[in-house]
Amino acid sequence: MTETSQGPLRVAVLGCGNVGTALVELLADPDRHDELRTRAGVDLEVVGIAVKDTSRHRSEQPFFPHHLITGDARSLVERDDIDIVVELIGGIEPAGSLIEAALRRGRPVISANKALLAQSGAELAHIALAHGVDLLYEAAVAGAIPVIRPLRESLAGERVLRVMGIVNGTTNFILTAMAAEGVDYEDALDEAQSLGMAERDPTADVEGHDAAAKAAILGALAFGCDVVSSDVPFEGISAVRAADVAFAQRLGYAIKLLAVAELVEGGPEISVRVYPAMVRNSHPLATVNGSFNAVFIEGEHCGELMLYGRGAGGQATASAVLGDVIDAARHLRSGFAAPAPSRGLPVKFRPTDELRSAYYLSIDVADRPGVLAAVAAVFGDHQVSIRSMEQTGLGDEARLIFLTHVAREGDVIGCIADLRRLPVVDEVGGVLRIVDGDDDPGGMGA
Amino acid sequence: MTETSQGPLRVAVLGCGNVGTALVELLADPDRHDELRTRAGVDLEVVGIAVKDTSRHRSEQPFFPHHLITGDARSLVERDDIDIVVELIGGIEPAGSLIEAALRRGRPVISANKALLAQSGAELAHIALAHGVDLLYEAAVAGAIPVIRPLRESLAGERVLRVMGIVNGTTNFILTAMAAEGVDYEDALDEAQSLGMAERDPTADVEGHDAAAKAAILGALAFGCDVVSSDVPFEGISAVRAADVAFAQRLGYAIKLLAVAELVEGGPEISVRVYPAMVRNSHPLATVNGSFNAVFIEGEHCGELMLYGRGAGGQATASAVLGDVIDAARHLRSGFAAPAPSRGLPVKFRPTDELRSAYYLSIDVADRPGVLAAVAAVFGDHQVSIRSMEQTGLGDEARLIFLTHVAREGDVIGCIADLRRLPVVDEVGGVLRIVDGDDDPGGMGA
Repeated sequence: MTETSQGPLRVAVLGCGNVGTALVELLADPDRHDELRTRAGVDLEVVGIAVKDTSRHRSEQPFFPHHLITGDARSLVERDDIDIVVELIGGIEPAGSLIEAALRRGRPVISANKALLAQSGAELAHIALAHGVDLLYEAAVAGAIPVIRPLRESLAGERVLRVMGIVNGTTNFILTAMAAEGVDYEDALDEAQSLGMAERDPTADVEGHDAAAKAAILGALAFGCDVVSSDVPFEGISAVRAADVAFAQRLGYAIKLLAVAELVEGGPEISVRVYPAMVRNSHPLATVNGSFNAVFIEGEHCGELMLYGRGAGGQATASAVLGDVIDAARHLRSGFAAPAPSRGLPVKFRPTDELRSAYYLSIDVADRPGVLAAVAAVFGDHQVSIRSMEQTGLGDEARLIFLTHVAREGDVIGCIADLRRLPVVDEVGGVLRIVDGDDDPGGMGA
Repeated sequence: MTETSQGPLRVAVLGCGNVGTALVELLADPDRHDELRTRAGVDLEVVGIAVKDTSRHRSEQPFFPHHLITGDARSLVERDDIDIVVELIGGIEPAGSLIEAALRRGRPVISANKALLAQSGAELAHIALAHGVDLLYEAAVAGAIPVIRPLRESLAGERVLRVMGIVNGTTNFILTAMAAEGVDYEDALDEAQSLGMAERDPTADVEGHDAAAKAAILGALAFGCDVVSSDVPFEGISAVRAADVAFAQRLGYAIKLLAVAELVEGGPEISVRVYPAMVRNSHPLATVNGSFNAVFIEGEHCGELMLYGRGAGGQATASAVLGDVIDAARHLRSGFAAPAPSRGLPVKFRPTDELRSAYYLSIDVADRPGVLAAVAAVFGDHQVSIRSMEQTGLGDEARLIFLTHVAREGDVIGCIADLRRLPVVDEVGGVLRIVDGDDDPGGMGA
């Protein structure tokens, strides 16, 4: 197999879990060979698969090239006959230094590694740019849903105002189950775990870490500036109670965990965050249920867009990775490289205290005269204006539910702190931001 | 203005209606200049605007370059100092020969001309390919919604099984109004016309011509073969009656005009068509209302995707065109060109008689004993199996509504012809295909 201009492009695959196995099966399937060559304009050939445990059998497919498996990822990346590197190891190291080594050797890299890209994406993109090669990662956010490429290319002429994503399938599955079955968070989590929709240790999903990494990637793309995970304040869904979900439903809302990147009041400051929100049923995101993902984009000229689909699964993610491999192959022949996500624009985050939103608050209180006056006074002290109030339950079960008008977050935080100090308040439970539809833009999570 | 490697890229705009005006405003706005240069990697400069009526004032913006307007499109395209040509004239000629001239001179072309692309897209793409330049047309289908690029690039590694689009805003507006207000087709059309949502002569929209052009473009992209408008059988919505909409609602369906391109039972034959269908409410397409557009994609590995947004409007379309201009500018520096939509695969259409679907039929009949037996016998003669039947009205108003099991289209056509010959049948009215959700794939419009 000599290297000529007509020869195949040689692909190194780092990591061979669900996604890696599905990808290698797609690339090595003799039935798909002609189709792939037509699409990529060249033959694609897997020439090495780096894994941690070389003894494990990966695939039942007879054509799966088990003989290409190696335990030495570093040497694979440094081979001279590699044209494209696919990183599917996940995590920060060794994935980061392997990608960097590949880029510095002028190899295009495809990755689905959201954690790494959210931490070092800007740095890696600059290395790719300097070496004139692609760094593509369509699969890093929302699996097979085309999100990265639309933001980077289709919307290149657009001033994006806001991106709101349901980008974590586990939390959306749990919230959907809570709404459909009326069960509590713990029961829905149990169900998700028993169905393999949640990890044994679900922290990264349910506390919002995973969504925060994706929010950073979306924010960097939408606004052309460097956003990293540590820039993204996040809240998860473990404090959401069955009563909150029921109340939201009664008012015509669904509770969703949102990854939000937005220009604050037209910019230039931005805000990139993750939080659970009450989304009005008429909003397209409200009907994204189960393990589905969606990214909702508002632009100055394009109006409202939504990209929707299954967010995860080895097959779907492998399909997105393969799309990137084919794109990189097409580019390689001309020396073109996809543009870096960051356009080097200065980034300025609006301090979270200064952000404004309408809120839902549920407060467990002692049920006796004068309680509402005491609680309402705290809201007033903090300039948090009440849109509606409702009491549910009696005696020890009494609970006050407030919807506020749009308020400063700093004021709401101060209000909650003082509420917790009131002797009549047992607990401040669910706190949710409210995302209304077009008909009430004043209530948007801005 | 000397031509150096650092100089601006010179853009010729052909046609200056709503979209052209909005595009030139975006390109010429001094406030957007730095942002555009950062995104495109180079300055973009409009150097000529070809129009039919040079006397008309186009824009109120003080920076709008009215002095660049010319009546001579041909000379503009043939200028040596043009780098990129944007065609927004619409229609077949002179748009087609102008695009061809530009491509043959090695100029990338951006077009939003669905009629031309559906008729001559394959031919023009082959000319672009031969000259190594881009032919981009993200705006030709579903306005600002990224559809073309996801199909061509993000899903390059995917075997697409079916694309179903709501791609005509006028018909979707009319059908949504019929459902929301219970009004008849004629009244909803009047309303659409008075709101500027339908043309004075609505034929191209309501009879499905426009959707058929977009179906051809989607089919060519999804299956990598040459599909032209004349390959696409189409039906419009003018025969849909208020009673059909009401019946569909009662059964949990919405009526939508769908542009469908699909592999028939796994291929290799395809079918590309436009027809009104009853779409089950649980299907994501069912809730795409008003003038919104959406394209629903099913792939072997990616599962179900939907791309959703506003399908029309000068601003939104101009934003999509500008995204293509920026992409072409990025590509020009390396000589890369986006891949042609057709991969030259042989195309074979399944004869429409052989297609299979479940159907809704509404039949006006004389209300007397024995009618149902006579009608049911015709269904039986044609091997069209009945899933359910319901009579509405009495006497002269009697109507039988049938839902069929999945049947051969040829059999259904024969059945309808024989029904029309029955003395007891006054009229065979609404005929709709039924698109069910995942829970009943047997009923899909395949």
